[in-house]
Amino acid sequence: MITFLSDFGDRDGFVGIVKGVLLTRCPEARIVDLSHDIPPQDVTCGALVLASGVGHFPPGTVHLAVVDPGVGGERRPIAVVTPDFVLVGPDNGLLSLAVHGRADRRVYHLDRTEHVPPAAGRTFHARDVFGPFAAMIASGTPPDRVGTEVDALETLSLPVPRRVEHVLEAQIIYVDRFGNLVSNVEPTHLADFRGQDLSVSIRGVQIAGISTHYAAVREGRPLVLWNSWGRLEIAVRNDSAARHLRARMGDRITVAVRDRRA
Amino acid sequence: MITFLSDFGDRDGFVGIVKGVLLTRCPEARIVDLSHDIPPQDVTCGALVLASGVGHFPPGTVHLAVVDPGVGGERRPIAVVTPDFVLVGPDNGLLSLAVHGRADRRVYHLDRTEHVPPAAGRTFHARDVFGPFAAMIASGTPPDRVGTEVDALETLSLPVPRRVEHVLEAQIIYVDRFGNLVSNVEPTHLADFRGQDLSVSIRGVQIAGISTHYAAVREGRPLVLWNSWGRLEIAVRNDSAARHLRARMGDRITVAVRDRRA
Amino acid sequence: MITFLSDFGDRDGFVGIVKGVLLTRCPEARIVDLSHDIPPQDVTCGALVLASGVGHFPPGTVHLAVVDPGVGGERRPIAVVTPDFVLVGPDNGLLSLAVHGRADRRVYHLDRTEHVPPAAGRTFHARDVFGPFAAMIASGTPPDRVGTEVDALETLSLPVPRRVEHVLEAQIIYVDRFGNLVSNVEPTHLADFRGQDLSVSIRGVQIAGISTHYAAVREGRPLVLWNSWGRLEIAVRNDSAARHLRARMGDRITVAVRDRRA
Repeated sequence: MITFLSDFGDRDGFVGIVKGVLLTRCPEARIVDLSHDIPPQDVTCGALVLASGVGHFPPGTVHLAVVDPGVGGERRPIAVVTPDFVLVGPDNGLLSLAVHGRADRRVYHLDRTEHVPPAAGRTFHARDVFGPFAAMIASGTPPDRVGTEVDALETLSLPVPRRVEHVLEAQIIYVDRFGNLVSNVEPTHLADFRGQDLSVSIRGVQIAGISTHYAAVREGRPLVLWNSWGRLEIAVRNDSAARHLRARMGDRITVAVRDRRA
Repeated sequence: MITFLSDFGDRDGFVGIVKGVLLTRCPEARIVDLSHDIPPQDVTCGALVLASGVGHFPPGTVHLAVVDPGVGGERRPIAVVTPDFVLVGPDNGLLSLAVHGRADRRVYHLDRTEHVPPAAGRTFHARDVFGPFAAMIASGTPPDRVGTEVDALETLSLPVPRRVEHVLEAQIIYVDRFGNLVSNVEPTHLADFRGQDLSVSIRGVQIAGISTHYAAVREGRPLVLWNSWGRLEIAVRNDSAARHLRARMGDRITVAVRDRRA
Repeated sequence: MITFLSDFGDRDGFVGIVKGVLLTRCPEARIVDLSHDIPPQDVTCGALVLASGVGHFPPGTVHLAVVDPGVGGERRPIAVVTPDFVLVGPDNGLLSLAVHGRADRRVYHLDRTEHVPPAAGRTFHARDVFGPFAAMIASGTPPDRVGTEVDALETLSLPVPRRVEHVLEAQIIYVDRFGNLVSNVEPTHLADFRGQDLSVSIRGVQIAGISTHYAAVREGRPLVLWNSWGRLEIAVRNDSAARHLRARMGDRITVAVRDRRA
């Protein structure tokens, strides 16, 4: 099983070509698209989507991920191997969130260039470098036969929520297709507030309580819930919170104990 | 064989994750995307596309369909079983057009929650509820082992064309990617007019005759034909009828016997 | 193996329906999407993407391609057979760039209509004509059992770069998802300039030298390189050249020996 994530979009045939390369070299592979509509060259967006997906595939799945503004330059092609899955892509942070905090990951620089087509260019490494290596690994070639183990992995640093007096200050880090606003708040960040009623503020709007599901409020009303990624999310029932609240990536939110006098 | 229709779009990885769940539980499944670009939470659009597709797959295909504004609320997860195919999705009307008028359909409330992951949330039932059940049914589990037969199915009511004196009044119910305007008129609605020359009016434009194919008129000219869904459609050759006629979903059209003096 | 390219988009279910037809008739087929986001009825765009893809799939792959403004009219359904692959689609130029200059291609008019469903309409030949024929050929049916060999193939004529005194005048023929501007210049067109430093002009901007990869210049700067299709391309590092240079399909570019005094 191979999944494939990129910022290649649907039009230009790039995705299909990479699949042709994968299936030429690993005919028995099953390929699942994780996303190809990552905004062009948005490594952070790609890293978040990849991280959300890796836990839901059969053991041993190879995840090929290519959002690669530095293609052909000095960033290294790597494989990150865990007991559960393998990631293949550029060492530019894209792969890092999916293995965040995992001590059991090993990183291989894919430097055995004898496996790359001799005429490979420097503009389409998904086709000429990452695809061939991913197919070899999916076919069972051990990573140390196609690369050299290295220590470091380029890592993305997402903004971290921080406590300022009685308030948690956090950020919107992703806006999904429905206009839901995904924050960088995870359950551990709210440990201090446990058992108390909370309210979340964004762009001057205060939302009381954490709902269990989108339909828990009336149509057109904002709500806060723990989303399917395990992050705190601001939504508007049957509408786009991004449009409704005129909010976007990077916007600041605050979480505080609800003031019942308000 | 499993098909998958949703309003999840291409970016956020939701579609890929559901496929990971399906293939983890039913490794031999073949999965075909029916559509993932249904406008967010547009149950009617999803129901029309699903209905157009179910007749074109091998017998026994399981069609997973999720356009689910009420996710996590009180609407039930169901399977609709016919001798030809099985539908799995929310009981909010989405599945109803695909089995419209079929007496041989049976409906099962998917209430055997022991098959759902214990940590399932209430925000992503395609991953946590519908997907697992669809995979089980595709693997051969009989529907009565995963649900309880029930009588009712929530049904959508499309507007129905009606005869007013000598004219059939109808509506545009769908606009496709080419800007073709699909109406709610099916051949039975025109039984009274059989054998007569017809003309169709929309937004003040009168179109004479029913063409057999798009290239039957000159470039840029409007035409009317029976489309691939079996519905009366207004198109403009090599252009978008929606743009050309400034028409959209819900617009009124009339069908009448052509006045040859006009 | 079957690939599928069309201008059907993602929303309306057309792509999924064609796959249902393919898999009903050829259950063991593996289907890869080449592109479905070709702009509606843009035969040239489809032909370019198809031509870029056919070299990257296993031998014997059947490439189904449907961008077909004349559906149901007089253009013929054809198969183009080469020792490496088979193309199936309308004879409107769409297939021609993928076999440009190949003497070993044979063309078959798919006229054995006994293989087409009797109720086939004239509006959705991908489902009713091309799909069934592609599935038969992918299943091993020899082309002369489903069609009649013919001589001619409708061909697209892309604009050809021409030498005017010391300058090569060329055109932008494609703009990809990243906003990269693909020209009609191939290496043979620059044979006269071999070994000399070149510069490319577009919309009043002069770009010196041919880079090996996108990251060879600073962020936001334009560059020229040989792209993954083997064509000369104008890009802007980490940005859209189309937006940055306000350029688009059809724009004129010139290539000349670099004037080092400038």
